[in-house]
Amino acid sequence: MSPTTLTVPLADDFHVHLRQGALMNAVTPLLNGSGLATAYVMPNLKPPISSTDQALAYKAELQKLAPGINFLMTLYLGPELTPDEIRKAAKAGIAGVKSYPRGVTTNSDSGIESYTAYYPVFAAMEEHDMVLNLHGEIPSDPENDICVMNAEERFLTHLQQLHTAFPKLRIVLEHATTRAAVEMVKSLGETVGCSITVHHLALIVDDWAGCCHNFCKPVAKFPHDRAALREVVKSAHPRFFLGTDSAPHPRHTKEAPQTVAGVFTSALVLPYLATILDGFDALDSLRPFACENGRRFYKLAPRTADSATAALVKEPVQVPQEYAYVDDEGNKRSVVPFMAGKTLTWSLRN
Amino acid sequence: MSPTTLTVPLADDFHVHLRQGALMNAVTPLLNGSGLATAYVMPNLKPPISSTDQALAYKAELQKLAPGINFLMTLYLGPELTPDEIRKAAKAGIAGVKSYPRGVTTNSDSGIESYTAYYPVFAAMEEHDMVLNLHGEIPSDPENDICVMNAEERFLTHLQQLHTAFPKLRIVLEHATTRAAVEMVKSLGETVGCSITVHHLALIVDDWAGCCHNFCKPVAKFPHDRAALREVVKSAHPRFFLGTDSAPHPRHTKEAPQTVAGVFTSALVLPYLATILDGFDALDSLRPFACENGRRFYKLAPRTADSATAALVKEPVQVPQEYAYVDDEGNKRSVVPFMAGKTLTWSLRN
Repeated sequence: MSPTTLTVPLADDFHVHLRQGALMNAVTPLLNGSGLATAYVMPNLKPPISSTDQALAYKAELQKLAPGINFLMTLYLGPELTPDEIRKAAKAGIAGVKSYPRGVTTNSDSGIESYTAYYPVFAAMEEHDMVLNLHGEIPSDPENDICVMNAEERFLTHLQQLHTAFPKLRIVLEHATTRAAVEMVKSLGETVGCSITVHHLALIVDDWAGCCHNFCKPVAKFPHDRAALREVVKSAHPRFFLGTDSAPHPRHTKEAPQTVAGVFTSALVLPYLATILDGFDALDSLRPFACENGRRFYKLAPRTADSATAALVKEPVQVPQEYAYVDDEGNKRSVVPFMAGKTLTWSLRN
Repeated sequence: MSPTTLTVPLADDFHVHLRQGALMNAVTPLLNGSGLATAYVMPNLKPPISSTDQALAYKAELQKLAPGINFLMTLYLGPELTPDEIRKAAKAGIAGVKSYPRGVTTNSDSGIESYTAYYPVFAAMEEHDMVLNLHGEIPSDPENDICVMNAEERFLTHLQQLHTAFPKLRIVLEHATTRAAVEMVKSLGETVGCSITVHHLALIVDDWAGCCHNFCKPVAKFPHDRAALREVVKSAHPRFFLGTDSAPHPRHTKEAPQTVAGVFTSALVLPYLATILDGFDALDSLRPFACENGRRFYKLAPRTADSATAALVKEPVQVPQEYAYVDDEGNKRSVVPFMAGKTLTWSLRN
């Protein structure tokens, strides 16, 4: 008989967007009671979080909204980030630096080549043991046959080069979506990790073709790519771990002629994950994938027998159609979660 | 100096959806003065056009709305279509039969699952020289790694088999989107033709990722696929011709959580085409691609010196944001055309 309950240590989400202002106020409290211990927070605000002081101020805001969560903060890789700032950030407990392709693509065909401009920053990060988080896509370029479907695969040589140049620098390839990415990360050394989202374990290209709420970057790819993600999670490979890339957007910006990229999963991370893993007979991997592997890579204290736990139970729960809030201009808005209105087979026991 | 005027015979669109009811009444008159002579009309209405009588009644409706257009009618391939009905249809001047794989696009729920069941129908079509129009995709099937990005390529062996089984049957692979499709059609005999849309000469996957108005089936694919379409059109290959697959949908069904497939191009076919072809230095191919190759394949009377013409001129025209109409329930609706609000570099001289 297959299990109907599953108790695990509180889980860790090593990639989450918590926004700012009214949207931050709406989504961050949903982490309370979500079964998560850790939220590794992305710095792509307006303006980007590019200094230690900004990151700490942002962290204080988040902490008020979800007092029980351990917020790990990141800085945005850009020209203003100096080795000196890295030293300051490391001292203040900032965990990592996030690189977005557009931040490094100024007048360069393949963009990522300009990573060399950041080598002094990476050297300082390596010295101070900060983590480099890579959005692993190169910009689309039809002349060179690069588009959203192969932008990740074409990025992988850059990951390889960075690892070779900075073998002790811990690097995370974020939100992997392809078999090629899984194979590349597996082939590299112990300092290279890889986060995988909840939704990429569920979606293929068909699911976002015409469906704005499943559209995110990197886009979900071929069935064989999803199969590779599922296999590596099921195998409990120690360098692959949960990073949801949960990315809330107001409904009207998703359901628009040009939609925005992002899938919102924060409120129900563990029910989604248990349901999806159970669907391919990988429930046993929930604990290493979501509660252990990331902690080890990020050098957080390991789980002990008396760590707080989350209890999952095989009882259906319906995903809300939306989470309503009022935006900074006073408009009634909502965020549509992943699988809105659908029924998950696993839920959290309160 | 590059040309600034181009006069061609009235063009032929060998694949168009003209709908029914209020939407038909709204879009069909846009063919008047569009520079088109021929509209090869798809049968995927509700219910599908599956008999000669239905097709002729539909043709009469269309003819009232656009008296100058030569409407060529098709039947929907399904279990109720018999060799007897084929004989009747051929006698009545019905031009072809359209095959939809089940469930892959708008109103295709009654589409085919296996071709062999239809071999008696195809034999009758071959005997009576009717054309078989294939929506060349197989249904997505993640277990077998089939998704919207490879559904056309995986279909091509079926095209090859049909051509081998019925070498004299004229078959058109509709709205090709891949290099593999172009190569396959080129490799087959004189009885196999291929239509290409306006929008697939312009779009790649990035353009519909997150943009509902560019979403259609088959989806636009990789840059190298678009390049193959452009190359074969530029080469004026005699078995490749215009079929727009223009497919109007009301705006609210496009801008929805789950959008519908289709791009609307009927109102401005020639300005789109001239603009796009000029963009890759293929303006000279407009005439063979849009005015000659299809006619020859479909055995229509060839153009003569005194055929009616369309005059294109290199003067900008703005694509309307939408075409408004009132639906059958009295609601104000609109259809958003391809490249809405953008400026085309070529326009029709009135």
